[in-house]
Amino acid sequence: MVDIDVLSNSITTLLEQKKYASLRDILSTMNPFDVAALFEVLEEEKIPILFRLLPKEQAAETFVEMESDHQEMLIKGFSDSELKEVVDELYVDDAADIVEEMPANVVKRILRQADPDMRKMINEILNYPEDSAGSIMTTEYVTLRPSMTVEEAFKHIRRTGIDKETVYTCYVTQDDKVLIGFVTIKDLLCADENEKITDIMDPNVISATTTDDQEEVARMLSKYNFVALPVVDKENRIVGIVTVDDAMDVIEEETTEDIEIMAAITPNEKPYYKMSVFEVWKARIPWLMLLMLSATFTGMIITKFESALASFVVLTAFIPMLMDTGGNSGSQASVNIIRSISLGEAEFSDIGQVVWKELRVAFLCGIALAGANFVKMLLVDRLIMGNTDVTVVVAAVVCLTLMCTVICAKSIGCTLPLLAKKIGFDPAVMASPLITTIVDALSLLIYFRWAAAFLKI
Amino acid sequence: MVDIDVLSNSITTLLEQKKYASLRDILSTMNPFDVAALFEVLEEEKIPILFRLLPKEQAAETFVEMESDHQEMLIKGFSDSELKEVVDELYVDDAADIVEEMPANVVKRILRQADPDMRKMINEILNYPEDSAGSIMTTEYVTLRPSMTVEEAFKHIRRTGIDKETVYTCYVTQDDKVLIGFVTIKDLLCADENEKITDIMDPNVISATTTDDQEEVARMLSKYNFVALPVVDKENRIVGIVTVDDAMDVIEEETTEDIEIMAAITPNEKPYYKMSVFEVWKARIPWLMLLMLSATFTGMIITKFESALASFVVLTAFIPMLMDTGGNSGSQASVNIIRSISLGEAEFSDIGQVVWKELRVAFLCGIALAGANFVKMLLVDRLIMGNTDVTVVVAAVVCLTLMCTVICAKSIGCTLPLLAKKIGFDPAVMASPLITTIVDALSLLIYFRWAAAFLKI
Repeated sequence: MVDIDVLSNSITTLLEQKKYASLRDILSTMNPFDVAALFEVLEEEKIPILFRLLPKEQAAETFVEMESDHQEMLIKGFSDSELKEVVDELYVDDAADIVEEMPANVVKRILRQADPDMRKMINEILNYPEDSAGSIMTTEYVTLRPSMTVEEAFKHIRRTGIDKETVYTCYVTQDDKVLIGFVTIKDLLCADENEKITDIMDPNVISATTTDDQEEVARMLSKYNFVALPVVDKENRIVGIVTVDDAMDVIEEETTEDIEIMAAITPNEKPYYKMSVFEVWKARIPWLMLLMLSATFTGMIITKFESALASFVVLTAFIPMLMDTGGNSGSQASVNIIRSISLGEAEFSDIGQVVWKELRVAFLCGIALAGANFVKMLLVDRLIMGNTDVTVVVAAVVCLTLMCTVICAKSIGCTLPLLAKKIGFDPAVMASPLITTIVDALSLLIYFRWAAAFLKI
Repeated sequence: MVDIDVLSNSITTLLEQKKYASLRDILSTMNPFDVAALFEVLEEEKIPILFRLLPKEQAAETFVEMESDHQEMLIKGFSDSELKEVVDELYVDDAADIVEEMPANVVKRILRQADPDMRKMINEILNYPEDSAGSIMTTEYVTLRPSMTVEEAFKHIRRTGIDKETVYTCYVTQDDKVLIGFVTIKDLLCADENEKITDIMDPNVISATTTDDQEEVARMLSKYNFVALPVVDKENRIVGIVTVDDAMDVIEEETTEDIEIMAAITPNEKPYYKMSVFEVWKARIPWLMLLMLSATFTGMIITKFESALASFVVLTAFIPMLMDTGGNSGSQASVNIIRSISLGEAEFSDIGQVVWKELRVAFLCGIALAGANFVKMLLVDRLIMGNTDVTVVVAAVVCLTLMCTVICAKSIGCTLPLLAKKIGFDPAVMASPLITTIVDALSLLIYFRWAAAFLKI
């Protein structure tokens, strides 16, 4: 792959020299995704000229991959016939995606240029709820009748399949569009020409319904290793298919969303590098604010034990370590559970099993950490650093607190995501930042409790 | 989809009643993935009987989806001819995956039953470095000659393609296996029977090399919306293909790994719910230990300013809030950058741009947080709670610290992952736990600096 900057320099130079034939030759060797990436680094006014050099089909595919502001600019510059040419080449689901991003007057122009069938299909897709299988499916697919022969099927595919997003799996339907089976092109190729579709089709079709969550549908495709998954309505009539490339995009998007939520960032459809400073700020400040203000509780706890701390200032030195270790322990558990929930491996009903496992892990972690810390405090802090305030009793208080904190943190960390899932919240919210805030307060309470018991303060 | 427990109950009952014909009927309607999932919830001794009821091809596909301990158990119980039947039906890449998981004596038996071609291909795949494109590719694919006609191509596909993992993209090679183009089945279906492959093939093949990182290859497939990507050696000779289903698995695995590393968990190939308590402990304790011990620095800082704190105990109450807000601010930035790096959107060369953006975001966040906190301290802490130690000067010290901490945290949070990437480390390591530990120490230093300046301590 050629570096994009080198390429964009050559393109710019050729444009200046008006060598359009060479430009067309270069561009037509490129993958649409790469052409779109190239357009992103070029100056905006150069895009329309280059776009018009692309062969028709490649132009449409490139158009799909472009940023929506560039799409809008191009559409505004298109003549009606140019727009029609592009729209005619688009797949319906891509057209629907584009229409969703455009301002109303541009949408009107696009729909006017689309042929009536296309317009109807775009409108159908736009009517499904966001993030549903209906909203990501395409309504272009090949259907076969059970009574067709393999030869007839091939003829049918040749006649109708050219525009279909995927012809590799064909769906077998009855007259009323009810889905009764599927055949892959591989099955068709391996079968005798005169065999009937009904004899070679696989009647065990796995399908999604239009209202299913897009993430679940994407994970189904991934789980079953399908190239496409049919989407049916409540009467089991096929209305569309979700293809594997769209499923991959959905999974990537949803994962980014999860990761952002886990880091206390409000997810945004735009990728980070596309967001303005203000947008980044808007995505981050609400959580920071909320978490900062909820730290009021930790402040109150410390204030309450202020006099105790004044007489044993040495205790303050271990507050950060206790809080951090608690936070880290809790977020390890919560992140493991959150990921298991996303991957469909853990459910609320597993809560007993999960808690029991985490308790044992917490116990082992607690022992190890407390042991290491006890040795460290007496050896490093007391002996080497000569801090005589660090007595055996102080070390015991810190280590007992550590042990209890780790156990609490891991129990809370594994429980909250499952509870969130149960009551219909996003489990990813229950990741480190929130867990940390809760565990902070808890660890301080435990700390002062043990200190009071052992140090008589 | 039927709930797996309901299904497993029926299956168990039918087994007890020895109704093998019905069992075979039910099982043969199921997707191999679901059969494997069913086996997981059944008692182990029932698996071999059920497995033998499966039709040959379904048996092989189910075998691939099973857990490796069950695979091992089945292989040990197989007669040689049974083993041969399963191995013959396997795709080479799946066979290689299975062989990797088995103990040496089982591997020997598998390789003995595999036909010589298969054995050679398995060995080839096993020789590629872990996590390379070579290790996930399959060596079964369809190649065509440029001089073939479309009709000949179809004959060739029919003759050789039945066993190939994907026949949807065929690769066009010269005599020396050098890759010169590709055609999809769709192209072939739409072309005239007498056209030459060389005239309809697309000569712009995007390919990976055997040593490319598997994650990069998977992302290429996702980016270009391919069903398969050819893998070539250094002389551009085709040696295998990576299919989209394997690419999806790679992306899921690598994402889980990233998320775990970000939460200070050593990644493990086993999913969380499969890991024993001890394995979970082993994955988590090293980081907890390291981070706990590095909190020694924060302890040292506090100890150094112990006398100052003793005279202004009120300052202690705001340490948790300052530390948490700093940690959260930093991890927001680091997580955004880490994800951008994984998705191939950010590189080290963007560091200037990224830092400049984060500085402005940090400034805005800092202002908002400091402002809110100033009001909160004087209104809630001083007026409502009646804590007269919270003076305007104390509030100013806390808010100035907050502002500086947020700016430091976000700068560090966005820089470290890019630096890690540059020097060949995993950027995910630079996520919240490590950032938090660093920011803790920094925020304390800043706090005591401002306190010294304003409160003359």
